[in-house]
Amino acid sequence: MTGPAPRRRGRPSRTEEETGPGARERILEAARAQFAERGYDKTSVRGIGKAAGVDPALVHHYFGTKDEVFAAAIEVSFEPAAVVPAIVGGPRDSIGERLARFFIGVWENPASRAPLLAIVRSALTHEAAAKVLRTFVLRRLLERIAAELDVPDPKFRAELAASHMIGIAILRYVIQVEPMASADPERIVEMVAPTLQRYLTEA
Amino acid sequence: MTGPAPRRRGRPSRTEEETGPGARERILEAARAQFAERGYDKTSVRGIGKAAGVDPALVHHYFGTKDEVFAAAIEVSFEPAAVVPAIVGGPRDSIGERLARFFIGVWENPASRAPLLAIVRSALTHEAAAKVLRTFVLRRLLERIAAELDVPDPKFRAELAASHMIGIAILRYVIQVEPMASADPERIVEMVAPTLQRYLTEA
Repeated sequence: MTGPAPRRRGRPSRTEEETGPGARERILEAARAQFAERGYDKTSVRGIGKAAGVDPALVHHYFGTKDEVFAAAIEVSFEPAAVVPAIVGGPRDSIGERLARFFIGVWENPASRAPLLAIVRSALTHEAAAKVLRTFVLRRLLERIAAELDVPDPKFRAELAASHMIGIAILRYVIQVEPMASADPERIVEMVAPTLQRYLTEA
Repeated sequence: MTGPAPRRRGRPSRTEEETGPGARERILEAARAQFAERGYDKTSVRGIGKAAGVDPALVHHYFGTKDEVFAAAIEVSFEPAAVVPAIVGGPRDSIGERLARFFIGVWENPASRAPLLAIVRSALTHEAAAKVLRTFVLRRLLERIAAELDVPDPKFRAELAASHMIGIAILRYVIQVEPMASADPERIVEMVAPTLQRYLTEA
C-alpha cells in the first residue's frame, strides 16, 4: 500500500516528512532494528513509530498489526518474488547449491541477520513469531520452490530442507557452536547443497 | 554419586524415604516434569525437591547445580554410554538410519520428549540451556559417534547432522508445521537417514 495515511479525529494533517515516500522505508528499518534489539515480545507498534519518527497510526496504516510489521521486516530479507525464480530458474542440478548459498548469504548479511535472529529466537516461544516463520520462510519461499519442482510431497520436502537450514542457523548464529560458528560459509554450502538438492528434486 | 546425603546444621537426620535408593530416581523424574511444565527459567532446585518429596539439599547433593540437574534429566533420554556403541557398532552403511531412528524414537516417546522440548525452547534464549544442548546432544553423543567414524572434520560433521535433527525437532514438535508434524516417523527416517549417513561417513 502506498496511499496517503488515513486522518484520525482531532489530529492535524500529517507533514510531508511523516507521510512522504521515505516514511514506509523508515518504518521498516526501525522495525528491523527494534525487533532485533528488543526481541519480538518487547517490540511495540508505538515504539517502532517513535523510532521512525512517525505516528504509530501510520505504522498501522502501512503494515497493519505488529505481526504484519514483523512479517514485512522479515520479507525484505527474503523477497520471495525475486528469490524463487532465481533459485528455480537456473540449472536444475544446482538448485540445492543456489538455495544453500542464498540462505547463508541472507544470514551472513548483518542487516538481514538481525531480524532473523529475532524471529528464530521468538518463534519457539511465541505463536505469532512461529506463524511468521511458517508463513514467510516456509509457505512463501520454500513451498513455492518445491511446487515448481514437480516432486512428490513438495510441502514435506520443503519442510525437510527448511528444517536443516533453520537448524544450521540456530547452531551457527544463535548458539554459536564451534566449529560451525566459524566455518567458511562456502564449506557449509558445499556440504549442505547435496542434501537440499536431494530433498527438492529427487523422487 | 550414591552415598548418603550430607547433614545440614540443625536438621534431623533424613528418613529412609528421603535418602533411600528411590530418591535419586524420584528427583530425576520430578526434574523432568518441572522443566517440561514450567520451562527452564521458572524451574528451581527447591521446586524439584518439593515435587520429589525431598530436601532441596539432597537435590544438590546428588546432582549439583540446577544446570547439572537439567543435564541429568536430559541425559536419561540419551544415555550416550549405551547409545553410541549401538549406533556405531552396527553395519557402517546404515549408521545414518540408526541415528535417525534413535533420534525420532527419543522424540516420539512422551517421557523423553517433554524435557527435550523444555531444553530446545530454552536453548535459544538461555545460555545455560544452550550449554546443556552443546554438552549433551553435541559433545557427548554426536561427536563421539563422529569420532568413531574416522572422517575429516568430525566435529563439523557432527554439527551438520545435529543441525538437521534439531531443525526437524523444532518444525515437528515445537512449531508443529504440517505435514511434518503428522508425518509417519518412518517416512522421516527414510528421508533423513541418507543425509546423516553422508555427513557422518563420506569424506
